[in-house]
Amino acid sequence: MSTSTSTAIAGSTRMASEIAEQPDAVRRTLEHLLPEQERLRAAFAGRRRVLLVARGSSDNAATYGRYLLEVSSGVPAALAAPSVATHYRARLDLSDALVVSVSQSGATAEIVETQAWAASCGATTVAISNVAGSPLVDAAEVALVTQAGPEVAVPATKTYLTQLVALAVLADALGTGPSLAAELARVPDEVEGLLGADVSAAAEALASAGRVVVSGRGLLLGTALETALKMEETCLRPVRGYSYADLRHGPISVVSEGLLAVLVASASGPLAEPMADLVRDLQERGAHVLGIGGTRDFARGCDLHLAGPDLPEVVEPLASIVPAQRMIEQMARRLGLDPDNPRGLDKVTQTERNHR
Amino acid sequence: MSTSTSTAIAGSTRMASEIAEQPDAVRRTLEHLLPEQERLRAAFAGRRRVLLVARGSSDNAATYGRYLLEVSSGVPAALAAPSVATHYRARLDLSDALVVSVSQSGATAEIVETQAWAASCGATTVAISNVAGSPLVDAAEVALVTQAGPEVAVPATKTYLTQLVALAVLADALGTGPSLAAELARVPDEVEGLLGADVSAAAEALASAGRVVVSGRGLLLGTALETALKMEETCLRPVRGYSYADLRHGPISVVSEGLLAVLVASASGPLAEPMADLVRDLQERGAHVLGIGGTRDFARGCDLHLAGPDLPEVVEPLASIVPAQRMIEQMARRLGLDPDNPRGLDKVTQTERNHR
Repeated sequence: MSTSTSTAIAGSTRMASEIAEQPDAVRRTLEHLLPEQERLRAAFAGRRRVLLVARGSSDNAATYGRYLLEVSSGVPAALAAPSVATHYRARLDLSDALVVSVSQSGATAEIVETQAWAASCGATTVAISNVAGSPLVDAAEVALVTQAGPEVAVPATKTYLTQLVALAVLADALGTGPSLAAELARVPDEVEGLLGADVSAAAEALASAGRVVVSGRGLLLGTALETALKMEETCLRPVRGYSYADLRHGPISVVSEGLLAVLVASASGPLAEPMADLVRDLQERGAHVLGIGGTRDFARGCDLHLAGPDLPEVVEPLASIVPAQRMIEQMARRLGLDPDNPRGLDKVTQTERNHR
Repeated sequence: MSTSTSTAIAGSTRMASEIAEQPDAVRRTLEHLLPEQERLRAAFAGRRRVLLVARGSSDNAATYGRYLLEVSSGVPAALAAPSVATHYRARLDLSDALVVSVSQSGATAEIVETQAWAASCGATTVAISNVAGSPLVDAAEVALVTQAGPEVAVPATKTYLTQLVALAVLADALGTGPSLAAELARVPDEVEGLLGADVSAAAEALASAGRVVVSGRGLLLGTALETALKMEETCLRPVRGYSYADLRHGPISVVSEGLLAVLVASASGPLAEPMADLVRDLQERGAHVLGIGGTRDFARGCDLHLAGPDLPEVVEPLASIVPAQRMIEQMARRLGLDPDNPRGLDKVTQTERNHR
């Protein structure tokens, strides 16, 4: 192990600092992006649906965007399959679509190429990126540049969270219902409030668990998938993220003694109660349950529990990821790993071997 | 272990018989559904896109349908998120959409409810089910009843494969390009030809592997996801199905010594070559690779290889799943499990605890 790695593990890591910077990153991003809502509404005029383009952590952010657009804004939304554009070069009529590409670097070749393809198919394009002047931002009709500041640790934390902010600003702009502005304004303080909680027992349980799965549902599905991906990337453990429904359809047969199930739940909304039922079902099969957020009933049922934010479900994911980020950062250090530089990962992800 | 279980393991299983019935099931289904193409075209008239609704194995079938519709038919397609309908009760304008619900039993409450919601949002509805007279079939405007015959083993094999046939018939009807009829007619013989291959070495390698992941891409992504799900359900092992891109974005860091990676590849098409590259990358990280199908270069690179069908990529998934089904059935028996009755699964899947 190199000296710099040992230092990172012993002292505070960049990942930990960047997690702690999130309240300000969210504040700056809200301030910067809310004035763009008029342009977003204009870009959507005459369009019927939103197509999201992303990979990796950005794909998990897009999953939240997709639910929020449908549930809160009443706009049909879906995730694109980039290979349809980049490899099959399909010709689709996207003149009814607003295509939103999400990439922290704005330089992932596959996403840049898919955005260009979408424009050539008649779509209006919106880019969400943390880098002004990046290829994705420069080519988009409307750019939402998140204000996370430079992110040095390889695992995306503040860039992911500010992508969620951008997606909420977008959904709020396109929706015809009540504005989310008041709810969004409460997010920075809620994120701040979650930074001090003690996550050491959760980190310890995860570090010593044989097998880990993560599950969530609806608006919080993306948070569950991001928790699983972050744990895989940072702690080099295979961790499966399941939607609630997928876990119930078949894979629940793999739930048995020794499994640690991390459940990310909403404190309110129509899915809050089913998540509390899932806790009991998993425990009956021999699993231990580590819960994040959820109702009081949910929290009581879990073997270990981390408090979530006090926010309505529509913006809850903008804070629910924080306890997960913190426990994963501590888990990596307990495993003797450097969370800032996980093995085998680069900051700018490329799908193709030759960076095509 | 009960007597019936031991008998099932020692002798031939229902799952094995049902896999062997697939050439006839495909023939019957093609014969039954091809005459419906005119009605499908009429149902799509004035619509712009297709939304697929499914869970579990049917969701993996729908993933193929989604790629085929976009790549071969030029029709934008996406998978629906059922909870948007069943729990959030979002009001979306689906008057531009054909909504295709896929469920072997036609009785999964969540899918039936989502289909009713879609109709109430203005969509035209098509049901793909193996059960005539099921609630899903009865409520749909057009029903594509697959002709798999009764399926007794819990893991879906012939019902899954005939769903793929129905989706190919649908995509062929909606496309403006050249007809797939000639390619589809070749499928039954190709399926038949794969039934005799020796899969014992693959089954043995899987049974003794510590960790298994499955990956595929594009038109064959659904086949990879179905292979992973079937292995989880039937062999009670956690098996992760990754898209090629998702595996490259982060989770590749969990690839290490002792991992067995199952790759399902196309013999032709724009993704054939990248899959051969992936073999080498996984091996360099210490994984063993079990390949199904693919190019000659791909086959040569794999540590173990099962031949795929001789079919063009657009209909390859209608046969590529067969070697996977057969190796999983044998893998289960090697593990002392009864493939016909995996623990914890019912034939009709329900997402909610109380069968809501």
